[in-house]
Amino acid sequence: MKLALLFGGASYEHEISIVSAITVKEKLSRFELTFIFCDQDHRFYLIDGAKMKAVTFSRGEHRKMPKLLLTQGGFEQRGMFGSKLHDMPVLNIIHGGDGEDGTIASMMDFYGIPFIGPRKEAAMLSFDKHYTKWLAESAGIKTLPYEVLHKGKNSLIQTPYPFIVKPARLGSSIGVSIVREASELDYALDVAFEFDNVVLIEPFISGVKEYNLAGFSARGEITYSIVEEPHKNEFLDFEKKYLDFARSSKVAEASISPKLVSQLQDAFQAIYLPLFEGALIRCDFFEIDGEVYLNEVNPIPGSMANYLFEDFQGSIQKLLGALPDKKEIRVHYNYIHSISQAKGK
Amino acid sequence: MKLALLFGGASYEHEISIVSAITVKEKLSRFELTFIFCDQDHRFYLIDGAKMKAVTFSRGEHRKMPKLLLTQGGFEQRGMFGSKLHDMPVLNIIHGGDGEDGTIASMMDFYGIPFIGPRKEAAMLSFDKHYTKWLAESAGIKTLPYEVLHKGKNSLIQTPYPFIVKPARLGSSIGVSIVREASELDYALDVAFEFDNVVLIEPFISGVKEYNLAGFSARGEITYSIVEEPHKNEFLDFEKKYLDFARSSKVAEASISPKLVSQLQDAFQAIYLPLFEGALIRCDFFEIDGEVYLNEVNPIPGSMANYLFEDFQGSIQKLLGALPDKKEIRVHYNYIHSISQAKGK
Repeated sequence: MKLALLFGGASYEHEISIVSAITVKEKLSRFELTFIFCDQDHRFYLIDGAKMKAVTFSRGEHRKMPKLLLTQGGFEQRGMFGSKLHDMPVLNIIHGGDGEDGTIASMMDFYGIPFIGPRKEAAMLSFDKHYTKWLAESAGIKTLPYEVLHKGKNSLIQTPYPFIVKPARLGSSIGVSIVREASELDYALDVAFEFDNVVLIEPFISGVKEYNLAGFSARGEITYSIVEEPHKNEFLDFEKKYLDFARSSKVAEASISPKLVSQLQDAFQAIYLPLFEGALIRCDFFEIDGEVYLNEVNPIPGSMANYLFEDFQGSIQKLLGALPDKKEIRVHYNYIHSISQAKGK
Repeated sequence: MKLALLFGGASYEHEISIVSAITVKEKLSRFELTFIFCDQDHRFYLIDGAKMKAVTFSRGEHRKMPKLLLTQGGFEQRGMFGSKLHDMPVLNIIHGGDGEDGTIASMMDFYGIPFIGPRKEAAMLSFDKHYTKWLAESAGIKTLPYEVLHKGKNSLIQTPYPFIVKPARLGSSIGVSIVREASELDYALDVAFEFDNVVLIEPFISGVKEYNLAGFSARGEITYSIVEEPHKNEFLDFEKKYLDFARSSKVAEASISPKLVSQLQDAFQAIYLPLFEGALIRCDFFEIDGEVYLNEVNPIPGSMANYLFEDFQGSIQKLLGALPDKKEIRVHYNYIHSISQAKGK
């Protein structure tokens, strides 16, 4: 089964996308894989599988490899004697900007390239944590209370200490701080506003129970991963998360009641359907007083959350066989015909 | 001043985009214009200005004109002896799908092409009428109460008759019906679900006052158009709206109080900033009991609402000189370097 891993992108998560793709490569040995790298200038390169190592990119060795152009049906490789089209389905593994903000989805759809990953609306709603709140509310899923701050506007923060300050549109804990008292606030805001013009404030709940659940829908049925209780060091910082993107060993299932598992699965389904069809996503939840709260949606989870699935290769294969169709619209020029006739032209 | 008009697209509004572009061409005589047509198969063509007539496209004559490929910085025209890059800024005039759903914005941003039009998040939030409700609520602007229906799910409608049934993601009144009694409901739902899997129900208020206001922000200042009270035939159907996209004569300003003008402008600003920066949009409002309600946002209004502006050419020029910058992200491979060093590779 052919599949192209698309990774890189112009985002703060460029490097973890590389790490993720390298990990996923190892986990999809049954597939006939093609590797397509998007550099920070949005140029595409066809990467030799034997060179799928982090240093290939940090040393700039990819620039000696064939360039690709995105076009109808795939990625075109121009050569001296004609051109070749790489037209297999794509697994979008560009974390953060480009991959998770709807850009790649827009381009894949525009050029008619089948892909695993969030469609553009799903991406945009999960990429911005503020919009994720709207989405969860509309799906009837609880989230923590929050405040929105805009760069350059002074706002009186109502949330009591301690609270979390996070840029609205970044994953992987980049720019996120816990603020325990007033003296820490300015620095935390400076850091967060470095990455985004919109910042969210949420209460910090010490020792809150966290559960991660991944899954996808194919042919009307949702495949759920096991539930993981992530180990945390109070809270995950970027460097720790970075290593997280290289995870490949299966983790232990959280020891929780069947009731909680089913609450988590119900919440997952309420968020997933129908918006996220075509994607394998990971939802990160809190459990507070027996109730499930959505923390965030990762529409392209680190290393595709391979470590949470019993049969990761089978899962990707199943999803690949059931990607949503884009409705094709045919134009018949009826209006122009009738207007031209009316005008006698 | 150079500017490319980008029009067409694979959407139900393909034809009105052509009509819109032809109208805008006439209104931008001071500009050095290039015409780029996107056909229903997402192929781009460079259109001869002398052939900018509706029949060029309905007869398929554009297929004899030069093909263009979207690439870094512009549209590439390949020839026998090398290629030429059309790298001027773009006015996105693709109404409906592609243009107003964030696809074109994603692609322009990805390839670093400056453009007038909604950025991807703005497009996505205004394209789906359900998301527009969330946006308005978050901006503190009233909208009519509504219900959301999903295709294939039976829902008991709570809204009393008469009500309006509309597909969530179509403009130009396509698929919209007024339902006055139960016997009309099934047909109206069938029509709306023909165009979208999500449908909105809103109360129909006979004789409600409607006001349209267009505008844009440039260098920290909003330029407002005059306020128009659209003439309506109970409500605008597609064929009437179609002709609307060809409007080029300046309309009369609505005779309303300065207070109402300022209420409409305040509501416009609350919706516009900062999300719609880079776009010239038209907001359609209702006035009910002295209060302003947002009906919908047209992030690429028909014929760019030229007929509402005192100095349309000057307005486009002003906006073109103040397009938002896309934040450039540079990757330094610090993490990969540090990890490679730690691993001794």
